[in-house]
Amino acid sequence: MKDKISKQEAIFYSHKMAQLSKALWKAIEKDWQDWIKPFKLNINEHHILWIAYHLEGSSISEISKYGVMHVSTAFNFSKKLEKRGLLQFSKRENDKRNTYIELTKEGSELLEATLNEYSPEDNSVLRGALPMTEMYGKLPEFLDLSALIKEIYGNEYMEILERSLENIEEKNPVNEEPTDIESYKQQPKSS
Amino acid sequence: MKDKISKQEAIFYSHKMAQLSKALWKAIEKDWQDWIKPFKLNINEHHILWIAYHLEGSSISEISKYGVMHVSTAFNFSKKLEKRGLLQFSKRENDKRNTYIELTKEGSELLEATLNEYSPEDNSVLRGALPMTEMYGKLPEFLDLSALIKEIYGNEYMEILERSLENIEEKNPVNEEPTDIESYKQQPKSS
Repeated sequence: MKDKISKQEAIFYSHKMAQLSKALWKAIEKDWQDWIKPFKLNINEHHILWIAYHLEGSSISEISKYGVMHVSTAFNFSKKLEKRGLLQFSKRENDKRNTYIELTKEGSELLEATLNEYSPEDNSVLRGALPMTEMYGKLPEFLDLSALIKEIYGNEYMEILERSLENIEEKNPVNEEPTDIESYKQQPKSS
Repeated sequence: MKDKISKQEAIFYSHKMAQLSKALWKAIEKDWQDWIKPFKLNINEHHILWIAYHLEGSSISEISKYGVMHVSTAFNFSKKLEKRGLLQFSKRENDKRNTYIELTKEGSELLEATLNEYSPEDNSVLRGALPMTEMYGKLPEFLDLSALIKEIYGNEYMEILERSLENIEEKNPVNEEPTDIESYKQQPKSS
């Protein structure tokens, strides 16, 4: 790498990427928090429900990997969701070493309710990307960003991401009718 | 927005962006932590030093805005840096309402020392972007990502980013010689 770019160029480049990435993630994080707050979930909890829903059951290490969170974070928040009756822990016959989680009916329904409550109008990324459709004729695909993540995290990460998106499409849980969120505000087993 | 994309498309799109953005930021965050750990700084502290260095003094609200951190976070970590003798607080004659910070000689030297210690080989983003130079003939510019951040955060955010990069270039603090970091490991006033 030294032969190709100077140290100063490298610092410029990585600092710019750090600023862009931090700004993007902070905007997404804030929108995500605002979206799921009425359901008494934090981002980690919602992300766990999401991954388990779309993978139709998942090991804790898969949650950690695809949720980009520490294994202990994945485990501890899964335990909290178990206490609320939203998921169950299990071992699999062919893989005794890993702990698996699977959503309960209540967990699936809660995740679907959050998806139905999603409001594109409140999403900074969508609002920011929309003017770019005039240039591209569609929402920008961020292909270089996808390529970079594939380089850093490996093919499998991107494959799981694509697969989890296909699963939403198949299950088709999103209706265009607004959901009555009042019924989810009080979780039966939540503390 | 409703006329243009369905709710399901919107969820797909924003979920994909959330996954990519979280993955990118977590990789950058980890590299950043590893880079500055020998200097007994956390990311917020280093980011404050960086911004104050490149803006040649800055108000707390500028730190908050360009560092994408809460005002109280910017203030509290600036206070910690003040205790270590790395920056000074002041008011400006023409702007009594805002609190300004300016790096001390020790603060500037410490920031320069971290820049000199930066190792492109250890940076996931650079390592991930390098194979893409074969396609582009240069490091990918992530122009759609820059355009998106400009839409979300406004022109000023991007202008400050460009300006802070020009300032590194002018001050030219980076030499290609490795720095002796041992002398910075023990901060005189640190607890």
